[in-house]
Formats: sequence, C-alpha cells, structure tokens
Amino acid sequence: MLPALHLPAVHTADSLAAIVADWRASGYSVGFVPTMGALHEGHIALVLKALELADRVVVSIFVNPTQFAPNEDLDRYPRTLEADSALLAAAGCHLLYAPEVEEIYPDGFATTIEVAGPALGLESDARPHFFSGVATVVARLLGQVRPDIAVFGEKDYQQLLVVRQIVADLALPVKIIAGETVRETDGLALSSRNRYLAPQERMQAGRLNVILRDLANALEDGEPLGAALAHARTLAGNVFDAVDYVEVRDALTLAALPAGRLDRPARVLAAVRAGSTRLIDNMSAKPG
Amino acid sequence: MLPALHLPAVHTADSLAAIVADWRASGYSVGFVPTMGALHEGHIALVLKALELADRVVVSIFVNPTQFAPNEDLDRYPRTLEADSALLAAAGCHLLYAPEVEEIYPDGFATTIEVAGPALGLESDARPHFFSGVATVVARLLGQVRPDIAVFGEKDYQQLLVVRQIVADLALPVKIIAGETVRETDGLALSSRNRYLAPQERMQAGRLNVILRDLANALEDGEPLGAALAHARTLAGNVFDAVDYVEVRDALTLAALPAGRLDRPARVLAAVRAGSTRLIDNMSAKPG
Repeated sequence: MLPALHLPAVHTADSLAAIVADWRASGYSVGFVPTMGALHEGHIALVLKALELADRVVVSIFVNPTQFAPNEDLDRYPRTLEADSALLAAAGCHLLYAPEVEEIYPDGFATTIEVAGPALGLESDARPHFFSGVATVVARLLGQVRPDIAVFGEKDYQQLLVVRQIVADLALPVKIIAGETVRETDGLALSSRNRYLAPQERMQAGRLNVILRDLANALEDGEPLGAALAHARTLAGNVFDAVDYVEVRDALTLAALPAGRLDRPARVLAAVRAGSTRLIDNMSAKPG
Repeated sequence: MLPALHLPAVHTADSLAAIVADWRASGYSVGFVPTMGALHEGHIALVLKALELADRVVVSIFVNPTQFAPNEDLDRYPRTLEADSALLAAAGCHLLYAPEVEEIYPDGFATTIEVAGPALGLESDARPHFFSGVATVVARLLGQVRPDIAVFGEKDYQQLLVVRQIVADLALPVKIIAGETVRETDGLALSSRNRYLAPQERMQAGRLNVILRDLANALEDGEPLGAALAHARTLAGNVFDAVDYVEVRDALTLAALPAGRLDRPARVLAAVRAGSTRLIDNMSAKPG
C-alpha cells in the first residue's frame, strides 16, 4: 500500500475529540506530539518515537502566544503549515490538530499554571513568563487530546522537566516520553529558529554543542565543576555575541550541584546568542 | 440487606487508583465529592447527588493547608474523621480517600494553578491565596480520582465557578455538578464553621440568609441594583460584627452588573463576621 500523502487535519477540540473517541472505541492507544510547526527532522524523530509507542499519533501545530514576551519573535516565528503537513504525512502521523488561537484561548479563558522547581532559573531568567505559558498550553492540549503518551524533545530539556512536573503534580493521565535531540553534521541541535541564522552565525552556532560536549566530557573525567564551568563559559563568551547561561545542574531536578566532582547524573545546559538569534542546547553528564 | 456500616478507606493515590481501576473494569461510572471533612447534611446531600449520577462514589477528606492564610483557622479547623466515616457509610458512599498532606504535596511539588475571571474579587479580597489553593488541590484530586462527575456545593458559589473554570480551561475529563445549599430551619446555610458560633452569634448568623433572600426578592421585583444593594448592606452592617462584602454579580461569570434593574441571571453573595467566625452565603436572583 502506498503511504498516505494526505494528512487528515482538524482545527477544533470537538472534531479532535470525536476522532480520538473513535480510536478509543477501536481499542487504539494514542500518542501526541505538541509542536509550534516549522517542523524539521527533530520533530519527525519525536513523531516516529510516538508511532513506536502508540497505535495512533496526533501532532498539534500551535504557535502559542503566551510563551512569547512582547519583544520576542512571535510575529516572525516561521509558519510553514503545508510543508509541515507533508512531512507529517510522510512520517506516518495520523492526525494534525491545528487550532486557531480562539480554540485554545476562548473568551473568558482565565487559568494559568505556574511552576516552581525545575522552571526556576536558566530559561526563566531570560524569559520569565515562558514556562507558565508552556505549562498552561501543554495542560490544555493534553486535556483536549487525552493521549496515553506524549513525546517532548530533550532539546528543550528544562521544558521537558517542567512538563513532567505538571503531569506529576496534577496527576494527569499521560506518560511523558523524552525524545533525543537530533543534530546537524557539525552537531548543531536542530531548531526551527536555526533558519534565522546568517551564514557566519550558522558557523558560530555549530560551536555551542562542541563547548557543551567538552564540558560534559571534562566533568565525566572528574574535573571539578567550578573549573570546568569557568572554562566553558570563557569559550562561549569568546565565540558568541552574548551568553545567557552555561550551567551544570542535577539531571532530574535542575537543582544546583555541589562544587567538586560530579556526584550524580547531571545536565550541562546553555543559552547563547548568535547575532540576534537565541540558541539553546544541553547534554547529559554522568559521574565516572 | 442491612446498610454497610463500615466504609472502605484508602490513604494513598495508588490504592485509590487500584480501586477505581477495578470499578472501571466492571463498567461502573465514578462520582467524586471532595471535602475537608467535618461533614454535615450539606455534604451528605452532595454525596446523595453523586450517588444519583454515578455507580460508585468516592469522597475525599483533606484539610488543604494551601487554601488557609497563616492567620486563618487551619489548626483549629474541625477534624472528625470517625463521625465523618459513619455518616458517609450510612449515606451509601463507596470509598473514603483520606490522604496525608505528603500524599497531596510530596517533596518537590511545584505547581500552582492561578485563576482570574470568576476568582477575582469577593472571597479573594479577604483571602487572596484561597482560590489558587483550591484550584490546585482540586485539579490534583480530580487527577488522582479521575471521576466522571464531581459535585461541588453552591454554598461556595465562587469556588464552584472557579472549579468550572479550571475544568473548562484545562479540558479536564470530568463533569462538574452543582449541589444546592442545605439550610437550618432558620435558613442558615450549613457550614463546618457554624460549630464555632456561640449562641448569640448563632442567632446573628441566621439573619444572613434573610438579608440575601430579601435582596434577591427586591431585585426580582425590579428594584434598581444600587438601591437594593445599599439597603442590604445597611442591614448587614447593623446585624454583623463586620461585613466583608454584599454583592450582586452575573450568575455565570461573577462579573459586575450594570446599574438599574436586573437584565440577566444574577447571584447575590455575602461574607460577614459573627464574632470571629466568617460566614458566607449566596442565592440566585433572576430578572422578572
């Protein structure tokens, strides 16, 4: 049988619920991958992971205004719905949910989910309202889709932990699955925002993963946290136009770590700017 | 058959989930009534309503610390678990969920649900953190129980609308049912806090529902909002030791109403103090 080249799409929660209810009636499990569109291989890897774990997979495309600050790139965030739809169809996704803003935030919408713990610091320092926007929209989307599993990329590692936190705290009936970061040949983590990069910036950008990899390796080799971090921060400062943070944190909680050698699974994380484009990346670092 | 005098009880979300899963496997629908214990006929009416609408009914008893301010009555809030359990068994409730604080707020718990809209003003003026405490614990309890329906009393009318708001906004898979307020012979709304009232305060307390009933009647008879409210506020001020508010609001949103005659379904609401005990009550007022 030829693969379906047309991807069914719904734009309202009611239409979505009707299809998911049919799937449930047929005994199918349901997987979900929320996205903001502008899809690339990183997203498709998440979809393929969902397809491994569930009988039917819904992908949402919704550029969530509440996770952008007024000075951020909401208006110029890339919107490529036709190309996205073709990529999803080719990947074997079963349904696209592409709601309008009014379907997610109807008149009278009044709820905000605030998260402490893993949401504190790092991304929140530069983007203080980001995780309440993410947590709220993810909870609403999970409520509308009601999947068995949902896949979130490790590329946005802090976001992944924030989503795990709200799912645990609100006892939401879904299992959160982490999807590995997909990288270019020079190691640059795929991101919808990479298309903003001018050629010179693209070359800069490729250095971020190298700095983080070297930092993770140094920590795994037993180098003390402070020295390894200082070195990585100096390098990042030399390469990038600005460094929001380079940090090493507890891999499960993002809590700060004691000085000295790694004593638990950690995550190295960074946010930098190449020109006006903000890049984030992160990697695992395990004690030797 | 004699009624069961022993009520099964669980204290952890896992034990609860196992029993609810068994019910689901047997095809039973599930109803839920969250309470803070100190049960009275008003709670039992909610349980009976849940029993009308669902095959199996869970009642939770959890005195939620996050909805009390430091100066409020958390420590002296009445705890009457044995009597509560007997009342619930006699009513036909199927399961008591009585978690410890650590089961609801484990180490690392980090999520808070903030609600605007119906949560603004009224109770929030005197108790600014109340509804985020309520919204968060209700969402967690709904997630742990996963009922088809949940019954909330109209006695706490603003709370009922806040719960409806989070269920709508987070697309939670539960239907919220309103339970009518149960009253003493003099019309005093039943409340666990009524047991705080000294005899003289108990007599005062009985006037609140009369003032609200007269206000609702005046509005239904076409009296302009401002005049009717001013009269009710004067009366309340004469009777009670303090008046937090006497208000008339849109019955669905709790938004302020235009001056003049009622033009839509409304709710009259009040909070007053008899001695140191805070009393709230509310009633419907419909345009004539």
